[in-house]
Amino acid sequence: MADAKGPWPDIAGRVDDGRHVVPVRVYHEDTDFSGLVYHASYIRFFERGRSDFVRLLGIDHEDLIAPKDGAEPAAFVVRRIEIDYLKPAAIGDVLEVVSECEELGGATLTMKQEIRRDDQTIVRARVKIVLITKSGKPLRMGALIRGAFERFLNQDS
Amino acid sequence: MADAKGPWPDIAGRVDDGRHVVPVRVYHEDTDFSGLVYHASYIRFFERGRSDFVRLLGIDHEDLIAPKDGAEPAAFVVRRIEIDYLKPAAIGDVLEVVSECEELGGATLTMKQEIRRDDQTIVRARVKIVLITKSGKPLRMGALIRGAFERFLNQDS
Amino acid sequence: MADAKGPWPDIAGRVDDGRHVVPVRVYHEDTDFSGLVYHASYIRFFERGRSDFVRLLGIDHEDLIAPKDGAEPAAFVVRRIEIDYLKPAAIGDVLEVVSECEELGGATLTMKQEIRRDDQTIVRARVKIVLITKSGKPLRMGALIRGAFERFLNQDS
Amino acid sequence: MADAKGPWPDIAGRVDDGRHVVPVRVYHEDTDFSGLVYHASYIRFFERGRSDFVRLLGIDHEDLIAPKDGAEPAAFVVRRIEIDYLKPAAIGDVLEVVSECEELGGATLTMKQEIRRDDQTIVRARVKIVLITKSGKPLRMGALIRGAFERFLNQDS
Repeated sequence: MADAKGPWPDIAGRVDDGRHVVPVRVYHEDTDFSGLVYHASYIRFFERGRSDFVRLLGIDHEDLIAPKDGAEPAAFVVRRIEIDYLKPAAIGDVLEVVSECEELGGATLTMKQEIRRDDQTIVRARVKIVLITKSGKPLRMGALIRGAFERFLNQDS
Repeated sequence: MADAKGPWPDIAGRVDDGRHVVPVRVYHEDTDFSGLVYHASYIRFFERGRSDFVRLLGIDHEDLIAPKDGAEPAAFVVRRIEIDYLKPAAIGDVLEVVSECEELGGATLTMKQEIRRDDQTIVRARVKIVLITKSGKPLRMGALIRGAFERFLNQDS
Repeated sequence: MADAKGPWPDIAGRVDDGRHVVPVRVYHEDTDFSGLVYHASYIRFFERGRSDFVRLLGIDHEDLIAPKDGAEPAAFVVRRIEIDYLKPAAIGDVLEVVSECEELGGATLTMKQEIRRDDQTIVRARVKIVLITKSGKPLRMGALIRGAFERFLNQDS
Repeated sequence: MADAKGPWPDIAGRVDDGRHVVPVRVYHEDTDFSGLVYHASYIRFFERGRSDFVRLLGIDHEDLIAPKDGAEPAAFVVRRIEIDYLKPAAIGDVLEVVSECEELGGATLTMKQEIRRDDQTIVRARVKIVLITKSGKPLRMGALIRGAFERFLNQDS
């Protein structure tokens, strides 16, 4: 968690009460000609939330895809997304991506995620991910990964 | 449908048997460091399919957002997406986006969409859209739009 | 500059010594199948730097495009970019976008921008922008905008 | 050039008179809140043009990055871009990306590219690319690649 001591302490967000929160600014790139945020941009925002959550848990995408210990390269892969668009967002908005673990299976992890603005939920998603090797085989999430996730698994959801 | 007579006759795809099909080439921009297509790219591909479907039905996004007849600007907005990722795709692949209408409500339209490669379904989605004015009010899809969609509504799905 | 007092004080970066600096995390969305950052992603990063610079100067994209005082809608538009790619970046990297004003003309502004990692410049750009009305007419940057930029204009570059 | 015989014969564009031309439709994803095409989208369009040009020349990105003959993985990398934005484009526009080789050096290739709409140039670029191994070493473009490019090298530009 070297970032937390660097010049940009908040860049990977914060874990609080089992939930991860990271801010996202809406830039030109995220909007479309309707004047509002393009619907696929939220899918990118949710991925940023999951990535930073995993990062704060001490798991490194770079290490997974290019392991130094000779293990087979692996990456988290999305299996299913359900997403509900409740309210629009606009250029310049500061949004928060809130992520929590909902269910941890042998090889899969289901996360509940929300985009919030001023404490209001504007987009809501459920995302099922799997850890998979380069050759396409689902990988049992090792003790390290399970341990990291279990600590943050929300018991009440 | 001027495109059909232009130099690139296939650019908006084809409607066949109530289904719209448009090809998508996988470029650098669509992939990520895993070596495969980034999961949010398919959300863009599905939107291309819906856009071209609507275009071939004779409905113009530009006219909706900037109506020449003084009507309130409007746009199709996504309300909900369910998406299942079955198989990966890679740089250079030629994919097909297949779209069909599943259900037409008063103000909403639900579409079934698939991404195919060599006649194999690799991603599957159900997308619910609504026609909405700039001020955020759902708009009853007018006679013109309903007529266009109903002609293509798949009765059997 | 309400952000500076909010929960994410660094989100728009900082202006220091006439230069604006904002951090950018490399996510999946920014990479391509080569394993590294996709070259067009840096164009988006540079735009984030310019947007946040302008934001910290007190200029609001939303106000420009939808003015409350009845003025014609306007937006900053890019006229020319020169960009040199010196070194690659990878997933998880924390980069810094450094932006400074180089030359302020009647209707145009030229900015020098860099992407840095660990104090090393990895991408360098010169970007010429113009303030333009919705109808396409270049707009003399008003006293307010000129004043904001002139304060930060780097005299030594 | 299997594509040319497939169901979508135009999908990789055409080479005519030493120039490669491929159409690009402007979708939601390519626009921003200004109502027009986002400036970084053209960088993606130019890359599509170069990719399809190279594809029609018989060079395969997939083979370069994962060679079957045990060669070191390699990819084309962008070194420098100069881009001039002359006119805007809007949702639904059919654009053409026109690409030609300008100069072929030992390890570098400079291409002239344009985006056209109705035979009018709206964006113009000069792009310098290099073939580079995974470990970052510039690679002399082999006889195969040089031969393919030289055949199409525009003598008059």
